[in-house]
Amino acid sequence: MTAAPARSAERMMQRDNASEALGMTVLASEAGHSVVTMTVREDMLNGHAIAHGGLVFALADTAFAIACNDSDLVTVSAGAEITFLRPAGLGQLLTATAVLRSRSGRSGIYDVQVADADGEIVAEFRGHSRRTNTPVPA
Amino acid sequence: MTAAPARSAERMMQRDNASEALGMTVLASEAGHSVVTMTVREDMLNGHAIAHGGLVFALADTAFAIACNDSDLVTVSAGAEITFLRPAGLGQLLTATAVLRSRSGRSGIYDVQVADADGEIVAEFRGHSRRTNTPVPA
Amino acid sequence: MTAAPARSAERMMQRDNASEALGMTVLASEAGHSVVTMTVREDMLNGHAIAHGGLVFALADTAFAIACNDSDLVTVSAGAEITFLRPAGLGQLLTATAVLRSRSGRSGIYDVQVADADGEIVAEFRGHSRRTNTPVPA
Amino acid sequence: MTAAPARSAERMMQRDNASEALGMTVLASEAGHSVVTMTVREDMLNGHAIAHGGLVFALADTAFAIACNDSDLVTVSAGAEITFLRPAGLGQLLTATAVLRSRSGRSGIYDVQVADADGEIVAEFRGHSRRTNTPVPA
Repeated sequence: MTAAPARSAERMMQRDNASEALGMTVLASEAGHSVVTMTVREDMLNGHAIAHGGLVFALADTAFAIACNDSDLVTVSAGAEITFLRPAGLGQLLTATAVLRSRSGRSGIYDVQVADADGEIVAEFRGHSRRTNTPVPA
Repeated sequence: MTAAPARSAERMMQRDNASEALGMTVLASEAGHSVVTMTVREDMLNGHAIAHGGLVFALADTAFAIACNDSDLVTVSAGAEITFLRPAGLGQLLTATAVLRSRSGRSGIYDVQVADADGEIVAEFRGHSRRTNTPVPA
Repeated sequence: MTAAPARSAERMMQRDNASEALGMTVLASEAGHSVVTMTVREDMLNGHAIAHGGLVFALADTAFAIACNDSDLVTVSAGAEITFLRPAGLGQLLTATAVLRSRSGRSGIYDVQVADADGEIVAEFRGHSRRTNTPVPA
Repeated sequence: MTAAPARSAERMMQRDNASEALGMTVLASEAGHSVVTMTVREDMLNGHAIAHGGLVFALADTAFAIACNDSDLVTVSAGAEITFLRPAGLGQLLTATAVLRSRSGRSGIYDVQVADADGEIVAEFRGHSRRTNTPVPA
């Protein structure tokens, strides 16, 4: 009996230094759906003493990358929009949940919600994916 | 003879742990205009071995924050859109240039272009600022 | 016995010349949810012989306005993003469905999906609302 | 002596029923740059008695289409973001100015500013174009 081969998103995440350096944990990794967490550390605070918007974006972007890399071809982010609804302070556990919204040919739209430990929404992110012709390395 | 008091954006940057941890350097800091650089490190690569989109976003977001914090009241990001045009690899020096585009009351729109060392555009970012009633701490 | 007073969104729609001129029909009008239809007419085609993106946007924007005008204070659109997934040709019946996604203070985010008669998605729209202090006229 | 052949954007505009029905006038039509005007008519007002956001978007979108259709292959809008800065009332002459911002392969980013007759900015629009393989008809 052999284990199922790792999904391309999982192979991709094993090489993702940035998400690892930011302390992200992948709780769910499926085609079209993912959940990723990150705790706001001291070195993630901006000059207003709240989580830097770029790092909140990074969390959502990782969740998006996991949800959209559902084939053996590399899928990249063409862009994204983010709205910041509530600041997140030091020590907050943030959870990003990504869901596929629409697909059309090589393009996809994914919505990612970032919430804090109380379930309050910190940010809403919409990512635009584009599947390339490059195979995901083994 | 006394030096001019630090602009609120400069006071803000002195406390910005995240931008410091990401190795950002501020080359220009004026109301409505800023230039910030960052070199893509090993711990900034994603699973496709290019700079993680969140960290490219973080660079643009810091440039945006410097350009829009031009009063003694804290100005925050309400959101942003980013388009990724070209991947940036390990060791690339990225330069983000932020420029005020439009203002209306408490709201502002800033455009940030992120280019690599060859002047090729890596990303285009548009940030939406909102001035709060909170004073910037001394 | 008296009828329930018209919701502010309904009073607003009675004065909406533009939506009427574009032949829109409101099928559902509730706080946080609306459905509006429009048929693509000859005078709505652009130079590529498909529905002009502005008019697809207008349909989504009207659905958004109905869903977000849920108080006696005027709520306006601060902006929106739209992604065009599929062209719509002459005679197509388009249906826009708006749903509240998130709220925070005076700000709201609404998602609007525009589909054709076959249920294929023509466009995805995300609107950002802002409640003003102006009362909706009777 | 023969006149220069019409640019593909001009051939496209000759067939654009929607822009004509909305009374748009093209003042400049070049690759990467265009200027289009529209006067806010009674049938363009929304329920708050200001220009319907969809029609302000339509004006910007037409300016964008003219600026980006600079080859003999049809270039379409993949999507756009718009920020509404100031309402426009009945009779206002609106001017949309489109400028190419960045290109990368088949993709382009164009910024369109919509101003009123006093030069006040009504809306900022950013359009994302994509060149197809379909030739523009003669």
